Amino acid sequence: MNIAIAGLGLIGGSIAKAIKQKTSHLVYGIDADQKTISSAIRDGAVDAALEEKDFSSVDILFVCLYPRAAVSFILENMDKLKKGCIVTDVCGVKKFVEDSVGAPLRKRGLHYVGGHPMAGKERSGYFHSNPKMLEGASYILTKNKLTDEEAFEAVKQLIASLGCRVVEATSEKHDRIIAYTSQLAHVVSSSYIKSPTVEYEKGFTGGSFQDMTRVALLSPPMWAELFTLNRENLLFEIRNIIQNLKDFEAALSEGDGEKLISLLREGSEIKKRHLEK
Amino acid sequence: MNIAIAGLGLIGGSIAKAIKQKTSHLVYGIDADQKTISSAIRDGAVDAALEEKDFSSVDILFVCLYPRAAVSFILENMDKLKKGCIVTDVCGVKKFVEDSVGAPLRKRGLHYVGGHPMAGKERSGYFHSNPKMLEGASYILTKNKLTDEEAFEAVKQLIASLGCRVVEATSEKHDRIIAYTSQLAHVVSSSYIKSPTVEYEKGFTGGSFQDMTRVALLSPPMWAELFTLNRENLLFEIRNIIQNLKDFEAALSEGDGEKLISLLREGSEIKKRHLEK
Repeated sequence: MNIAIAGLGLIGGSIAKAIKQKTSHLVYGIDADQKTISSAIRDGAVDAALEEKDFSSVDILFVCLYPRAAVSFILENMDKLKKGCIVTDVCGVKKFVEDSVGAPLRKRGLHYVGGHPMAGKERSGYFHSNPKMLEGASYILTKNKLTDEEAFEAVKQLIASLGCRVVEATSEKHDRIIAYTSQLAHVVSSSYIKSPTVEYEKGFTGGSFQDMTRVALLSPPMWAELFTLNRENLLFEIRNIIQNLKDFEAALSEGDGEKLISLLREGSEIKKRHLEK
Repeated sequence: MNIAIAGLGLIGGSIAKAIKQKTSHLVYGIDADQKTISSAIRDGAVDAALEEKDFSSVDILFVCLYPRAAVSFILENMDKLKKGCIVTDVCGVKKFVEDSVGAPLRKRGLHYVGGHPMAGKERSGYFHSNPKMLEGASYILTKNKLTDEEAFEAVKQLIASLGCRVVEATSEKHDRIIAYTSQLAHVVSSSYIKSPTVEYEKGFTGGSFQDMTRVALLSPPMWAELFTLNRENLLFEIRNIIQNLKDFEAALSEGDGEKLISLLREGSEIKKRHLEK
């Protein structure tokens, strides 16, 4: 197959390298930065830069850009693609992308399959890309009633061949769960590190401070965009954790030791159930 | 030296094993649970159980119990100790213990040195104890104007010989920083895991959800006691993170993308400065 990857950042670069390492498909790269393209060719992450004339030979197009940029890229370039071409993306929100490109692609005989690899790092950019990042990671693929089964299976097979665990979901389910498992973690991490006490942490930490603040180093524009495009789900989770923290605040300020124990026990029981699963 | 360890749980057991592995001191164990004592003797973690008559031969007594139990144990047994004996503890709050036992011990010619190894796990009990847990970990020792320098140096040397990095602080400073680096992490982790969405997380997580909820599995009575004994410091940190989360909530609910970016950037800059340190 001819595979094109638009956006050779951390994720796009890692997917390109993984495809070259694990399959015999041809990989074409697209990136606004010429130096990144050169590096990717030199590294063997891609076979060549995708020229305008090559669009029509692409079988699967991965769009590895921020959500709004991904939608623009797809809408601007879809008329160059051949019928039956599969367009997939890696954005951390899925309903927005699906709603924006699903119908226009379908109208042109092109197939959309939403994707979201649950892999990443606190660092971004091609320089940090690594095919190992994908190994064993969950890779969510979204489908709805209109999704073309054959196209979905083709993406699924390719993703599985990269060493990922494919997880299927609707875009709505994806966005609801991801607000909790990923977006909220970034909000909390950023909120955690903003204490005046942070200046004194050296020597006073075991593992928990590091865990809590690891993802505070993030790309602000990307995460702000993801948050905005998943507003209601994320607001629900932020309000939920604020309420839980307020319960601790109330129990502690009243010196209610029994209440503190029961609040901690509640969390501990949930964690225990999850470890047993 | 003759060293006695009261409370052979996760921390007491690990310290006992580390001392036996790395030094030639005699180690006596004290534990309410006879089976734990037997296991510790069988494992070579202690040389023998400490009998009533042996108290007077102890050079350093480690008290590895919850804070209130540690204070009671020290006050109840201090008259059996010989002059010059050093009493140290491993509690996660230091001002409470220092205020409770410092003067009574001093009056009897005994020395108090507060300690807090920044090591631990989500699991507790002797069964999980492991001397490796201490290697490379920070071990905070507290002193004040009345602390006996020789006694402090003796504990410091012993702790360093176990492979820990000794960090010196006043009990006030310890409690202020630990409220942030450790206690708040447990409050947040417990609050994080209590979302209805947690039931659907499987397959939808990279590393951040695991990081956020790792310490939710904790000993509720111990942590409730630590929180209560460090009330003001911890309330400050809980209120601070609630405010930071509310800032995100407000920006998101108003759809203010620029504000979201600036909130994230603020956290990201702090994290960056800390990685460079």
